Amino acid sequence: MKRRDVLTAGLVGAALPLAAPALAQTAPELRWRLHSAFPRNLDALYGAAEMFARLVGEASDGRFQIETSAPGSQAPALLDAVGAGGVEMAYAPAYYEAGRDPVYGLATAAPFGLNARQQNAWMLQGGALDLFNEIFARQQLYVLPGGNTGTQMGGWFRREIKGVADLQGLRFRIAGLGAQVLAKLGVAPQSTPGPDLYAALEAKTLDAAEWIGPYDDEKLGLNKVAPFYYYPGFWEGGAMLHFWFNAQKWGELSKNYKAIAQSAAAQVNVDLQAKYDARNPGALRRLVGGGAQLKPFPQEVMEAALKAANEIYAELSAKNPDFKRVYDSLKAFRNEEYLWFQVAEYTYDNFMIRARARG
Amino acid sequence: MKRRDVLTAGLVGAALPLAAPALAQTAPELRWRLHSAFPRNLDALYGAAEMFARLVGEASDGRFQIETSAPGSQAPALLDAVGAGGVEMAYAPAYYEAGRDPVYGLATAAPFGLNARQQNAWMLQGGALDLFNEIFARQQLYVLPGGNTGTQMGGWFRREIKGVADLQGLRFRIAGLGAQVLAKLGVAPQSTPGPDLYAALEAKTLDAAEWIGPYDDEKLGLNKVAPFYYYPGFWEGGAMLHFWFNAQKWGELSKNYKAIAQSAAAQVNVDLQAKYDARNPGALRRLVGGGAQLKPFPQEVMEAALKAANEIYAELSAKNPDFKRVYDSLKAFRNEEYLWFQVAEYTYDNFMIRARARG
Repeated sequence: MKRRDVLTAGLVGAALPLAAPALAQTAPELRWRLHSAFPRNLDALYGAAEMFARLVGEASDGRFQIETSAPGSQAPALLDAVGAGGVEMAYAPAYYEAGRDPVYGLATAAPFGLNARQQNAWMLQGGALDLFNEIFARQQLYVLPGGNTGTQMGGWFRREIKGVADLQGLRFRIAGLGAQVLAKLGVAPQSTPGPDLYAALEAKTLDAAEWIGPYDDEKLGLNKVAPFYYYPGFWEGGAMLHFWFNAQKWGELSKNYKAIAQSAAAQVNVDLQAKYDARNPGALRRLVGGGAQLKPFPQEVMEAALKAANEIYAELSAKNPDFKRVYDSLKAFRNEEYLWFQVAEYTYDNFMIRARARG
Repeated sequence: MKRRDVLTAGLVGAALPLAAPALAQTAPELRWRLHSAFPRNLDALYGAAEMFARLVGEASDGRFQIETSAPGSQAPALLDAVGAGGVEMAYAPAYYEAGRDPVYGLATAAPFGLNARQQNAWMLQGGALDLFNEIFARQQLYVLPGGNTGTQMGGWFRREIKGVADLQGLRFRIAGLGAQVLAKLGVAPQSTPGPDLYAALEAKTLDAAEWIGPYDDEKLGLNKVAPFYYYPGFWEGGAMLHFWFNAQKWGELSKNYKAIAQSAAAQVNVDLQAKYDARNPGALRRLVGGGAQLKPFPQEVMEAALKAANEIYAELSAKNPDFKRVYDSLKAFRNEEYLWFQVAEYTYDNFMIRARARG
């Protein structure tokens, strides 16, 4: 009788599990903290960190425990805390750190960059994850992909945007490289925090605000104070979220705990995208039912923004070798990806969208 | 001093890992076999099963070992072997089993069904995985998603297809629900095995053959004997692969081994799609360089095929309650998904594709 047969003998047809692995008594106990950049009421994003902690806990039979929390106002310093080792992990999109170095922006989304699937392909099979980790290691950080929102919406506007002229002086809540692109078009970027957006739009101290997509936007109720809902968020063709580790703490993990963490992050990666894809349609329906007026950005705005983005990429590449190296990789990868996507993927979606429209 | 501090004391700045977890001496040892439906030379697909085995091995510190193999000619009986417990696992797309029940086809890809991202969303967040597992459990099978090829190509044709008339009597290698759809349009579906396609097309005993996409198709060299390369493979808008478990063996796994297997499958899921997305563009370039002539299916063919598919869905739903339940779920989910995808995702990709074409 083989060992496998011994293990399962007598269990045929019964619901009895194998004895719980004895590793519970012997594997090293770790208790880590994870700070989320998102508050609990952004349940998909905060839930991603909770899901990671649960998966790691289950796979390690409870020996590797991760406590998630949302430090809130400490959020801007999240990665400083992880780099210094004060907290082992964070969950945040890399572009929240674009202020420290614009190269961080490219790990989440570049204006006119990759869509969500392409961002995964670039990270996992295009060499980008290794490039980023080489750069981030200088700040004692190690990163893993942790989900994507998909192409975001362009945000909520109090009045219609009919062309570039309507962007002049527009007080638009937008951050990162997207803000720099739109500033070139005359926008006055604002950094209003999410919870204050409704009041600022209602008081007309803000003209427009971009947030995420229908599912998260619905919670803010912005359709009531800024009814024009523009798309696409061309500065976030696919916005990747990340799990951040203190590089030394990561390096000290045993090989099996590393494997557990990597696979758990990957499961969150696919699950978060699935969650957004499953929940956005219903939220979009409700928003439109509640007065949101869906509008595509005018072609003139898209073209001017693309030109501005390319200027910014040239400027940043000229003075920042890390940025140049990563952006060159992204640009080459994007060129190849859309070569392929325009064939089977895009033609299929195009047909399906038209067939749906006809009923 | 806290336990964590004890564990890491003295390691600051050093490359020493924590002591390997002692679970190696105590966790239950499992040695499973996994039969792949794909031969080793289809390295992305065979590699997905190998990656799963490696990840489970690493996460369990070598205690849960899975041996992968490609039984080849036994392939049609793969899931019978898993259901009977003769082998614990298989890696195969569910639609290879559409002959036993067409509902299996829907777990991989339905003609005019979901694209790859939507298939994940439906499975993981739309209730489909639970539906399938309820149905598959009757045959002692438990399934997890294990990757996707993305939208496949429509295949290689010896002569041009200008309309439905050109499909009459066409000997086309195609299987599953796609074959049933095309049969309604006059095609004579053939089940020629992959390795024999080149010879059959060269000998003109076959007029056309669909396989997968550029990366896998390139290995067969079909561009030399059937130069017209059609897209999209509308019967596979996103073809999902699956990990299959004997349901009883799955149920007997400890909670942490289940968690390890689920996360490992998810990591393969995201990685296989990334692999195809990263490798297809270069293969497509080489194929076109080698004489392949890219052609979209005529609109007339797409429309006629959609009509035929809807007739087949109505027929199958009328006589197969499982099929009806799953197809109704898929149809409702697809309607919602394309409502959303046509807004931000599609508009973004559309702009990017046009911008790329202009340089």
